[in-house]
Amino acid sequence: MIRSLAFTTQGRLHSKDIEMFLMPTLLTDTNLFLWIDLENPTPEETKFVLEELFHFHPLSIKDCVEASLAPKVEEYSPKEEDRFALYLFMVIHAVDYSRKDGVFATSELNFFLGKNFLITYHDCHIRSVSLTEDRAVKGTMHIARAPDRVAYNLLDSIVDNYKPALEELSLEIAELEQEALANPSKATLNKILQVKKEVLHLRQIIGPQREVLARFARGEFKLIRPHLVPYYRNVYDGLFQISELAQLYTDSLTGILQVYLNMSSNQTGEVVKLLTLITVITTPLMMIGTWYGMNFDHMHELRWKHGYLVAASVMVISTLVTYWYFKRKKWF
Amino acid sequence: MIRSLAFTTQGRLHSKDIEMFLMPTLLTDTNLFLWIDLENPTPEETKFVLEELFHFHPLSIKDCVEASLAPKVEEYSPKEEDRFALYLFMVIHAVDYSRKDGVFATSELNFFLGKNFLITYHDCHIRSVSLTEDRAVKGTMHIARAPDRVAYNLLDSIVDNYKPALEELSLEIAELEQEALANPSKATLNKILQVKKEVLHLRQIIGPQREVLARFARGEFKLIRPHLVPYYRNVYDGLFQISELAQLYTDSLTGILQVYLNMSSNQTGEVVKLLTLITVITTPLMMIGTWYGMNFDHMHELRWKHGYLVAASVMVISTLVTYWYFKRKKWF
Amino acid sequence: MIRSLAFTTQGRLHSKDIEMFLMPTLLTDTNLFLWIDLENPTPEETKFVLEELFHFHPLSIKDCVEASLAPKVEEYSPKEEDRFALYLFMVIHAVDYSRKDGVFATSELNFFLGKNFLITYHDCHIRSVSLTEDRAVKGTMHIARAPDRVAYNLLDSIVDNYKPALEELSLEIAELEQEALANPSKATLNKILQVKKEVLHLRQIIGPQREVLARFARGEFKLIRPHLVPYYRNVYDGLFQISELAQLYTDSLTGILQVYLNMSSNQTGEVVKLLTLITVITTPLMMIGTWYGMNFDHMHELRWKHGYLVAASVMVISTLVTYWYFKRKKWF
Amino acid sequence: MIRSLAFTTQGRLHSKDIEMFLMPTLLTDTNLFLWIDLENPTPEETKFVLEELFHFHPLSIKDCVEASLAPKVEEYSPKEEDRFALYLFMVIHAVDYSRKDGVFATSELNFFLGKNFLITYHDCHIRSVSLTEDRAVKGTMHIARAPDRVAYNLLDSIVDNYKPALEELSLEIAELEQEALANPSKATLNKILQVKKEVLHLRQIIGPQREVLARFARGEFKLIRPHLVPYYRNVYDGLFQISELAQLYTDSLTGILQVYLNMSSNQTGEVVKLLTLITVITTPLMMIGTWYGMNFDHMHELRWKHGYLVAASVMVISTLVTYWYFKRKKWF
Amino acid sequence: MIRSLAFTTQGRLHSKDIEMFLMPTLLTDTNLFLWIDLENPTPEETKFVLEELFHFHPLSIKDCVEASLAPKVEEYSPKEEDRFALYLFMVIHAVDYSRKDGVFATSELNFFLGKNFLITYHDCHIRSVSLTEDRAVKGTMHIARAPDRVAYNLLDSIVDNYKPALEELSLEIAELEQEALANPSKATLNKILQVKKEVLHLRQIIGPQREVLARFARGEFKLIRPHLVPYYRNVYDGLFQISELAQLYTDSLTGILQVYLNMSSNQTGEVVKLLTLITVITTPLMMIGTWYGMNFDHMHELRWKHGYLVAASVMVISTLVTYWYFKRKKWF
Repeated sequence: MIRSLAFTTQGRLHSKDIEMFLMPTLLTDTNLFLWIDLENPTPEETKFVLEELFHFHPLSIKDCVEASLAPKVEEYSPKEEDRFALYLFMVIHAVDYSRKDGVFATSELNFFLGKNFLITYHDCHIRSVSLTEDRAVKGTMHIARAPDRVAYNLLDSIVDNYKPALEELSLEIAELEQEALANPSKATLNKILQVKKEVLHLRQIIGPQREVLARFARGEFKLIRPHLVPYYRNVYDGLFQISELAQLYTDSLTGILQVYLNMSSNQTGEVVKLLTLITVITTPLMMIGTWYGMNFDHMHELRWKHGYLVAASVMVISTLVTYWYFKRKKWF
Repeated sequence: MIRSLAFTTQGRLHSKDIEMFLMPTLLTDTNLFLWIDLENPTPEETKFVLEELFHFHPLSIKDCVEASLAPKVEEYSPKEEDRFALYLFMVIHAVDYSRKDGVFATSELNFFLGKNFLITYHDCHIRSVSLTEDRAVKGTMHIARAPDRVAYNLLDSIVDNYKPALEELSLEIAELEQEALANPSKATLNKILQVKKEVLHLRQIIGPQREVLARFARGEFKLIRPHLVPYYRNVYDGLFQISELAQLYTDSLTGILQVYLNMSSNQTGEVVKLLTLITVITTPLMMIGTWYGMNFDHMHELRWKHGYLVAASVMVISTLVTYWYFKRKKWF
Repeated sequence: MIRSLAFTTQGRLHSKDIEMFLMPTLLTDTNLFLWIDLENPTPEETKFVLEELFHFHPLSIKDCVEASLAPKVEEYSPKEEDRFALYLFMVIHAVDYSRKDGVFATSELNFFLGKNFLITYHDCHIRSVSLTEDRAVKGTMHIARAPDRVAYNLLDSIVDNYKPALEELSLEIAELEQEALANPSKATLNKILQVKKEVLHLRQIIGPQREVLARFARGEFKLIRPHLVPYYRNVYDGLFQISELAQLYTDSLTGILQVYLNMSSNQTGEVVKLLTLITVITTPLMMIGTWYGMNFDHMHELRWKHGYLVAASVMVISTLVTYWYFKRKKWF
Repeated sequence: MIRSLAFTTQGRLHSKDIEMFLMPTLLTDTNLFLWIDLENPTPEETKFVLEELFHFHPLSIKDCVEASLAPKVEEYSPKEEDRFALYLFMVIHAVDYSRKDGVFATSELNFFLGKNFLITYHDCHIRSVSLTEDRAVKGTMHIARAPDRVAYNLLDSIVDNYKPALEELSLEIAELEQEALANPSKATLNKILQVKKEVLHLRQIIGPQREVLARFARGEFKLIRPHLVPYYRNVYDGLFQISELAQLYTDSLTGILQVYLNMSSNQTGEVVKLLTLITVITTPLMMIGTWYGMNFDHMHELRWKHGYLVAASVMVISTLVTYWYFKRKKWF
Repeated sequence: MIRSLAFTTQGRLHSKDIEMFLMPTLLTDTNLFLWIDLENPTPEETKFVLEELFHFHPLSIKDCVEASLAPKVEEYSPKEEDRFALYLFMVIHAVDYSRKDGVFATSELNFFLGKNFLITYHDCHIRSVSLTEDRAVKGTMHIARAPDRVAYNLLDSIVDNYKPALEELSLEIAELEQEALANPSKATLNKILQVKKEVLHLRQIIGPQREVLARFARGEFKLIRPHLVPYYRNVYDGLFQISELAQLYTDSLTGILQVYLNMSSNQTGEVVKLLTLITVITTPLMMIGTWYGMNFDHMHELRWKHGYLVAASVMVISTLVTYWYFKRKKWF
């Protein structure tokens, strides 16, 4: 699917859903800039836009079409024989709520950013893209005066979209903390490790994206006008906060794991205590009972009138003394 | 709430609680500088001061109004069309004793620092701000000759305010050390992990603030006059000491955790020892008792006159020997 | 074995399996470039190509012939008395499926890259080399216009060859995760540690290679034409992704190890619980049985008509109560 | 207490214990330089020397008078209105044997180093200072030709003074290693953690001091003449060795802790083994004894003539077999 | 002991074991260079060579004579009043097989490297030195044309000498891996920690030496001619490989330690399982035996004709059922 929008440099929407054959003409108009959004495009569409219309460098087309885990940014400046204009190619990852494999399933979003065009390429629907499109069409003026501005809005929206996922994670961690203390079971360990994995995944997603955005924040690229650099720095700060949170989550989870492991080894300790308690409590009875179960002929105690009473009393008293002794020594 | 103070460059207090309509006039007077403190201001007040009076960059206003975990400093230098003067925007976090969620609850403090103005913006009362205000009004002369000097005093006071919280933490850690050795319980583990969390939180607060202040200490900003740079370096050293202390606390807590875990597994070990001791001590009696409880017709020992005495003696002696043997082998 | 290929700078194959005595002549032709592949060569072949034909620096020849764990790249620029031309010497490691000692057995591949020649030297057959050779011969034009282009294709193919090994590893890790939860045995621990070792090995292989390729990606070498630098950067990105994966694998394995150790200590805990359960359940019977096994003359209970019934009932009831009590307290 | 020494630039001692009112005169003599040592001075002395005589920057005076954990070095270069000459202010920490809280109790030593003066300020007696004083007075000529030379000697002596403390630590660690293997008790754990704390403390002291001295070693300061830089580099190397040792100690202690924890969990394992051994050994007797203690009427074995003998033999044999079986399986 | 060699710049041996009084003359001859090797020299020899002959800087003489753990390199360039020529002073550590305290006992080797001289100073015999001496005398021409070349050969030989020690270590680690799995005992733990200590020691030796050689590899020193820099880089690569190996060894040992600790806690788990097994198996017999050992008058089972048979059968069957039940649940 191709969606295309043309804006004037005054920030007005010029046209929408432009016919393909019109695009080359619009691109020559210096008062316009084009945003073409390729969502899960057919190979023909991809070929037309990336190769025939813009003649992008084959490497960047390859990186765009192939799935990749690593965000990147690369500036392609044309040489004499090249037919493309100076452009930035960027790969960034957005949180994807349409996929169901964990909180931080991500979709790749590819940018081609030039003086008067912005091409976005993604395999599945990304909310940030459609949201920014809506805002650009409605609230034009402020947002849609230049491709670097639109790109900023896209990136800002992508970073903002991490936040609900982070809050979900934060809730899960708080729950796990309760669970580890109150009722530690095998399932708890599994959940702890699952969440830890997701936080690690988050850190792995965020880390390289931070590095990519740091280059924007430092103003390394000619295509980003200097007065927009603070805006990109703001996006960078957002990512920085996310990675700080991820660090916090990691530390919390390590703590929770320690609580869990301690609780679980405490349980064994408690069971051993119970075993010992039972042994201790029954020992006097078992000793006396076994002893006077012997069949010697000359065990005078057995013949005594109050022998049984004495034995029973000794048993009860020594049981109580034992119990009291270990109670006082805080064994139990 | 808006509080405003105007000082002459000679360090005298010129006026206080200035009417809003007078502010623009005062700002044009090169012999004066203004400190406007916005504490939990209404949106109208915010708008008037930040937008209408100073025309600050919209990004810095957004960062100021929104809560954020990350301290930052950003220099905004105006371009032709911009209506604001060169200024520094800074976000810093102060310890907040009015909030009750842990020792290191923090409040955000925003600065706008210009040649002849200092705007501070915060959502709740911050002691350092009111203290510095008092000192600036009373002890003028020395402190209140320029906004960068006032800003230094504010930062210095904020860093100083961390110290009581650090001492509280230090006491808690010393207590935990005692508790882990003397009486390790589930509650102790919980406390250890709670304090560890707070120390981690402290390190997360301090770390980025150090980086922000390092930029001042290196004299990166034109608005800070060179002879004030050592003062800022001093504030930086204060933060450095705090983060060293935080490192020390982390190490101590790791040690305490090791003691705790060892003590807790030692307890189980002790219980197992007790169980074994009881088993060992009662074994001779149980063996003899069970053996002579058998009902064979031809057990001559049972008929012997002193059979019972011999059995009892054997039992007592072997119990003592067993006990002595394990005592000597230091089992118990 | 020596294989040699000569290409024209237009990208056509000029000649193949060139006689040794012809090589010097071909090297003087500026319209040609030569690729000589030495696979497990005889000392004479090595000597002829590296020393007599190209007069390479003795240090690079030594590094080439000796096996080494460390990848490296070194630019040799000739001085007046030297008889060699400017060249790059590079050592890189390819995954070697022909060896059987683990997934990431590697073979060393040595490059000598000059303006108009590429020498590859390796002790055993490397698939990437023969594949690139085939592609260069067939699909000439695009690939085979210059040695730096061929070198890129080789490096790209080597990095691609890591991927099947990585996927194998990924499957093994997923299996181990299942196994650690379902059926943790000594063999599982062994496998976990084995896979961890391989991942560590992978990281040790990839780390220094990344550093070598980073120098290409930064465009440090004159012999790599600037418009090829993005290609090398692409290879670098591939390595970067591999090392990210390796990091992910390490983290997963650490988690799996934690699960394993916990499951294994849980097993002991379960066994102790069983022991305690049996002791608890049998205690009432043993106490009553032992007690009424005593031979006192005056134990009236023994004479009662329903004494036995009462004793049996008490035993059954107290067993049930004990069982129910511990059941309710979730001991079991 | 103020001690003061004046040396000629030829290295001779000019005068000692100079009257305060003479100091300003001596300072104007370009052929002399002054070393003033303030040991626990009265506020008046401090004020006279630091403020009235040298007019030092108020910040450096504040840093000097206040206790601080962080070593630092700062160059103060005067501006027009300032009345002090260019000087270095340095805070360094010396090992203090007079205090009793651990091996690495430290005292702060403050330096003010100028072209023709050296002021040292410390709250308690520091051996290195008095030693250097003695050497400067006796062996003048070589040492006492310039303040930067004297400062080097002081620093060298301070670093040397760490060595006895390090050796004490090294002995303690060797002892702990023995103890952890031979006789691990709660006290051992405590000692291990105590020593670890001290090593961590040492590293925290040394780390920042190394950074301070690295700036000298790099020749960053104009007041240190270039040909003295290797000397300062030597002091830096001394600190480097100490921090290497501290690293070694940390690693050793981690190893000792592992031994300790293993030995302590081994002890529990041994106790469990003993319990099992006793159970195993007594099982045949208990089974036979309990079985033939039954009171069934028709137990023919009980009536057999050699029943008892057979039972006893079976018991002895099965006990021996059990023992031998577990002995062979290396259980015990 | 002093050994001295003079070579011509053409690489021929000029003279050997030169009389001390001849040395100054030889040093003035620009066609010669001198290698003086001081092995455990007398103070007089040291003084003559280092002080009287070359007038080296007193700091470097002090560093040379004193033992030190830290390798270093320092360039001493003379000032007007100094009487020495530009020289490099270097301290490096060689593996010393003559000492018996561990695999990586090292001896210090000091270099003084000038334009036309090389002084080596060491307290005990170092094989690399005598080997290089022999090679320089025999295979002159190539090696012995300049002091920087000889120094390279020395360093190369020293690095090569680490390899046998590394291989020994590698064998020990492989053995430990077997032992930890097959037969983990206290001695194994001790050996693991011993070897870990040695590997840590190795890393501590290698780390700083790498830094020293990195400075050579970067061509920082004027006294090393540029075309020799790749040779020094080669030595650096050797050290790099050693430190990579050391990293690998550390990782292996950590894995072995985990295996050991797991095996050792598994052993306790197995013992507990055995205890439980015995308890489980004997429980039916003990219950029935104890129950029918009671002396109630009215226990009709005792009077039944087949009572004993029934009891025995019940006992055998329930024992078998219990055994089979736990067998099926994989408890044993």
